[in-house]
Amino acid sequence: MQSTAAVTRLNHLAIAVPDVRAAAAQYQAVLGARVSEPQALPEHGVTVVFVQLENTKLELLEPLGEASPVAKFLEKNPAGGMHHMCLEVCNVKASMAAVSERVRLLSSEPKIGAHGNPVVFMHPKDMVGVLTELEEVPRS
Amino acid sequence: MQSTAAVTRLNHLAIAVPDVRAAAAQYQAVLGARVSEPQALPEHGVTVVFVQLENTKLELLEPLGEASPVAKFLEKNPAGGMHHMCLEVCNVKASMAAVSERVRLLSSEPKIGAHGNPVVFMHPKDMVGVLTELEEVPRS
Repeated sequence: MQSTAAVTRLNHLAIAVPDVRAAAAQYQAVLGARVSEPQALPEHGVTVVFVQLENTKLELLEPLGEASPVAKFLEKNPAGGMHHMCLEVCNVKASMAAVSERVRLLSSEPKIGAHGNPVVFMHPKDMVGVLTELEEVPRS
Repeated sequence: MQSTAAVTRLNHLAIAVPDVRAAAAQYQAVLGARVSEPQALPEHGVTVVFVQLENTKLELLEPLGEASPVAKFLEKNPAGGMHHMCLEVCNVKASMAAVSERVRLLSSEPKIGAHGNPVVFMHPKDMVGVLTELEEVPRS
């Protein structure tokens, strides 16, 4: 049985933004990175743009609909800001079992995340202030 | 002449923490990642621990001495939190010239960063709320 979440890669750094089209235009113009078209994900309460870097990606998240998971963050940080980091694991249920005594999990079962993979969030108070998502990504 | 910063990789995600040893112990125990010994960098005003992931690293930063660059952030976020992201570029002076009309730079010349490479910071207000460091990393 594994004794830690056994994270592998940083899947993405999520940045909450008030206007994802404006944010994407600024990031493309300044960084010169490849930026996707905005994708509305109503079941996740966000419109997302992916900013592809060589080794990972940034995800720009604009609230969509009511009860968006980034709405409260933007009330406190109206200009936007870093919202969460997402770390890859091979088996999210095994990771949850391994860390459940050390960190509070925000759901008792994995949910299906924006990439179609099982995910769980760890409470930021148990991760030194950082909202941390674990995403199950099968190893190729 | 390049027209953007021409970023390549996410070099690191910096996380400000009130106690770097406690934070390192928690990240090691929860994530199972390789964690360095704390390094005092008095000339940069931080004690740093590196958390190595497969594709990038997290840097845990505890204030060291007076006028630490992370002290004010921790006053506002005493539990810690994501402080800045660091993106790699091939030539930081060329990147600064390319983006200077679109973003405010926090210094007019590059400084030598914690890894011994030239760096510059871009104002978070021009990067959708994200304090962004550009670090010159020669391509191998």
